[in-house]
Amino acid sequence: MKRLGFVGVGAMGGRMAPHLLKAGHEVGVVDVVRESVERAVSHGAFEASNPAELASTCDIVLTSLPTGAEVEDVYLGEGGLMEAVGEGGLLVDLSTIEPDQSRKLAAEAAERGAVALDAPVSGGVMGADAASLTIMVGGPKEAFETVQPVLALMGKNVIHVGGYGAGQVAKLCNNLIAGVTMVAAAEAFAMGKASGVDTRVLHEVIRTSSGGSWVMEKDPPCPGLIEGAPSSRDFEAGFTVDLMLKDMSLAVSALMSLGIPCPTGAAANQVYRMASRDGLGDLDFAAVAMLTGAAERP
Amino acid sequence: MKRLGFVGVGAMGGRMAPHLLKAGHEVGVVDVVRESVERAVSHGAFEASNPAELASTCDIVLTSLPTGAEVEDVYLGEGGLMEAVGEGGLLVDLSTIEPDQSRKLAAEAAERGAVALDAPVSGGVMGADAASLTIMVGGPKEAFETVQPVLALMGKNVIHVGGYGAGQVAKLCNNLIAGVTMVAAAEAFAMGKASGVDTRVLHEVIRTSSGGSWVMEKDPPCPGLIEGAPSSRDFEAGFTVDLMLKDMSLAVSALMSLGIPCPTGAAANQVYRMASRDGLGDLDFAAVAMLTGAAERP
Amino acid sequence: MKRLGFVGVGAMGGRMAPHLLKAGHEVGVVDVVRESVERAVSHGAFEASNPAELASTCDIVLTSLPTGAEVEDVYLGEGGLMEAVGEGGLLVDLSTIEPDQSRKLAAEAAERGAVALDAPVSGGVMGADAASLTIMVGGPKEAFETVQPVLALMGKNVIHVGGYGAGQVAKLCNNLIAGVTMVAAAEAFAMGKASGVDTRVLHEVIRTSSGGSWVMEKDPPCPGLIEGAPSSRDFEAGFTVDLMLKDMSLAVSALMSLGIPCPTGAAANQVYRMASRDGLGDLDFAAVAMLTGAAERP
Amino acid sequence: MKRLGFVGVGAMGGRMAPHLLKAGHEVGVVDVVRESVERAVSHGAFEASNPAELASTCDIVLTSLPTGAEVEDVYLGEGGLMEAVGEGGLLVDLSTIEPDQSRKLAAEAAERGAVALDAPVSGGVMGADAASLTIMVGGPKEAFETVQPVLALMGKNVIHVGGYGAGQVAKLCNNLIAGVTMVAAAEAFAMGKASGVDTRVLHEVIRTSSGGSWVMEKDPPCPGLIEGAPSSRDFEAGFTVDLMLKDMSLAVSALMSLGIPCPTGAAANQVYRMASRDGLGDLDFAAVAMLTGAAERP
Repeated sequence: MKRLGFVGVGAMGGRMAPHLLKAGHEVGVVDVVRESVERAVSHGAFEASNPAELASTCDIVLTSLPTGAEVEDVYLGEGGLMEAVGEGGLLVDLSTIEPDQSRKLAAEAAERGAVALDAPVSGGVMGADAASLTIMVGGPKEAFETVQPVLALMGKNVIHVGGYGAGQVAKLCNNLIAGVTMVAAAEAFAMGKASGVDTRVLHEVIRTSSGGSWVMEKDPPCPGLIEGAPSSRDFEAGFTVDLMLKDMSLAVSALMSLGIPCPTGAAANQVYRMASRDGLGDLDFAAVAMLTGAAERP
Repeated sequence: MKRLGFVGVGAMGGRMAPHLLKAGHEVGVVDVVRESVERAVSHGAFEASNPAELASTCDIVLTSLPTGAEVEDVYLGEGGLMEAVGEGGLLVDLSTIEPDQSRKLAAEAAERGAVALDAPVSGGVMGADAASLTIMVGGPKEAFETVQPVLALMGKNVIHVGGYGAGQVAKLCNNLIAGVTMVAAAEAFAMGKASGVDTRVLHEVIRTSSGGSWVMEKDPPCPGLIEGAPSSRDFEAGFTVDLMLKDMSLAVSALMSLGIPCPTGAAANQVYRMASRDGLGDLDFAAVAMLTGAAERP
Repeated sequence: MKRLGFVGVGAMGGRMAPHLLKAGHEVGVVDVVRESVERAVSHGAFEASNPAELASTCDIVLTSLPTGAEVEDVYLGEGGLMEAVGEGGLLVDLSTIEPDQSRKLAAEAAERGAVALDAPVSGGVMGADAASLTIMVGGPKEAFETVQPVLALMGKNVIHVGGYGAGQVAKLCNNLIAGVTMVAAAEAFAMGKASGVDTRVLHEVIRTSSGGSWVMEKDPPCPGLIEGAPSSRDFEAGFTVDLMLKDMSLAVSALMSLGIPCPTGAAANQVYRMASRDGLGDLDFAAVAMLTGAAERP
Repeated sequence: MKRLGFVGVGAMGGRMAPHLLKAGHEVGVVDVVRESVERAVSHGAFEASNPAELASTCDIVLTSLPTGAEVEDVYLGEGGLMEAVGEGGLLVDLSTIEPDQSRKLAAEAAERGAVALDAPVSGGVMGADAASLTIMVGGPKEAFETVQPVLALMGKNVIHVGGYGAGQVAKLCNNLIAGVTMVAAAEAFAMGKASGVDTRVLHEVIRTSSGGSWVMEKDPPCPGLIEGAPSSRDFEAGFTVDLMLKDMSLAVSALMSLGIPCPTGAAANQVYRMASRDGLGDLDFAAVAMLTGAAERP
């Protein structure tokens, strides 16, 4: 049994922390939203006054935050983790942020004799509920091995991708592909529909051919194809348009910094941007189908 | 046993026709390339003087041609199929062409009491060799049922997609998705490589996550990931850049005619165009990885 | 004084034909819309029963039609121009259509000893009213010289661009550039606005720098910059989103057929497509500013 | 007569500083490249040991540096401007960097009672030579008025765009439009060429129509159209592909941060990226014509 800290127990973190409690760990939480803290406490967690308190009293502190700005604040702000973390400290950031920011935090931690791993997750709220997330970890092998049993309580695939930042890179690469594939699917199914082809037959053909993908299996762009998929539940997320927009923007930014061409990433990014401006931001990212005509607007 | 005609016995048709002969059918062939005819004859086929001869003497005539121009010529040109096809005639076009052109040929055939099905195939030369193609058929259900046993000799999935043109639509939809997914993969793996992430680990993460796809399993953009994949064989096709360029162009044209936005299709189409202009047209379509830096140029 | 025919006297043709009447020419008209014919007759034109009648009785027949489909019908349909045009006949198509279609019509005319010039116009309804159109003519030099004085009554710049189809090519090239420039301007002004920069100052800077263009001078994307510009008149066209969509689609199709990459043309084409789907099709093409946030939706 | 500092006297700064000397000002220079300093000294400048020395002894210090990284170093690094600048100090950055970085430097200066204006320039090395640059200034009006006479020695249009960062915004907006327009022109002229239309006639049509622009007048994508233009001088810059790539990347980054869609900016950015990867980075940005076929590769 370990003493663990968890900063950010909202949509994602609030579904992950209970798995740690169920396994018998002691878990201290911090969140700016009162109800999130109370819900965690109702599951058995204790409340800490700030991230620094967790850093000074826990074996491992996990963070799960919406964007790089909140991560910056929790790690480097007043009452933040870096104020109190010391020799041998272990910080694990489950948020998706820029690889360069993860590397910067790792360097700050290293100056204090601590290790700050990047460990972004894939699988959305359903994966968090089911403890079936994929968790992509960047940082030293030994630290990975120490935190692996804890992460394994929340994820089915816990993978050591490489050095600091590599977890973020893998996450962005994956979501770049998923995001582009979804838009391509939305284009193709709009063509099928406008051409009078039965959407179910088209889906059956594509999923067994070279157009097959996770998107086809788990989250196709049209209703009625896969039971329980977001598109069959009025596009209830799943993984929202706004989250995909955030990740694709991080990916395209990283690609631009690296000097790598990304014509499809850049084009798909624009589509999520337009979907978000059109008020579809809270729907599942399959809702880009509403922009091509593959699905009806609500 | 049936008497079958086969027009176009080159890269694809030349690998499909032998399966018909092996099953005991009599097969007459026509091709503008002398060696193609001779190779077919060496497998047991007989040579016909022109498509019209096949139309007047065979139960079913199959065609497998590179572009719509050749199809136009074989169907409507001098000595073409329409000159001789009559009441009850069955024509099956295995080529990938515009859905509207397929519908036009079907209308021409109908005026003569015949049926002209569109039946484009997916699976490339390897699928043709192994008789494991996916064959997507458009046209009346009864005609489909008549030709199904013959097509099943050449393909593993023989699917009745819908009315005339629906086979072409399904093929273009599938290849649009596959073509876009490949470019997205080429962008993502270039990011991974430039960030110092191990390509094998990255591949393992993505294939089991939401970025997973046929492309990841069968034709990833980097060498050494999947044994026997084109990228592991110096990008020997498989399905060439030029063929993908042709299919993506047909898809984008169809989408424009239908008034459907296709930002990722249009962007990916440009990438295949540039790859072709850069002299990569004969390599597998995974070779777009050379434009992003995910793979080295030869 | 000449006897002229004019097929299509709607939004554009209905504003061009009066200039011919004012110059003393006799003008016979045909249009499928009753009111268009009546308005032309009220200006002094006479009504003809069909295009063929004009072709058999007029020195020159001009056509001004919305799309290639109507042009096909007027030239090659029943009662069409080709039925009656003979040796020495002169046909001038002011419509914007595919260069290949213009070349086909020219070939049909040539078989009858006649000449069919392509002569698409630029300048919109305002240019048609003011007889200040740019008219881009493709076809033989001698035929151009014969029709030039007639075209000069309707346009300020009447240019012999080259052989058959060259007029269409020039028109599509021009509108491709104008259409892309407008979208780029809509992106830039949205950035300025979101950054708190005064739009008038920004406009002043750009128009005198390397970002300067016809778009900046005559049709900037934001209201209040140029008096009388569409954006200052609630985006009343001018040249509509739907017409730009049509021309950009023709341009992108032509580029694809020619095997030329067109990343910005393809991207801008998508934007006009989305604007049209969003119900902005009848507004001036500057209304793409509403998609980026450079202008407010009505 | 004033005592001025100038940090960065390379390709741009080295052509601007002599105008200040000619007007009778005393100019101290700093540059990491030895020859740049020596050339400036040969024009009458004196050498300073570091930026801080200039900040403590000059009325105004100007900086002209390649990227944000060098600007960061010169302003905030060891021996940098912020170490020595005090109450009433005036810093003017002629570099093109992110608007947010300019605002950050302005805030740092304000803490010291000084003013740091952003004043990026447009016009390239030719404009710098001829003192005909456009200079876009962001910051307080009074500070602008103080530096205006000095900037007017180097530029023809010295414009107060707005508050801190507004100069950068204007510059990025302008170059975004110019960069996109150039790619569109490269696409259009490739179509004209491939269609057999005379490039000179096409140019004449477009420049006087709605496709007209600075690009058409000063830097068209094909050789032989405008005497003295980069395309007529073997694409000798002018303004290089790599500089346009840098500015377009800054613009697209800013647009992404602001949540504004930029389909054409994103697409054009990819084209400059590919041109740079293809070894065309040092040529004028009109060299994107080599990617579409509008111009021949060297």
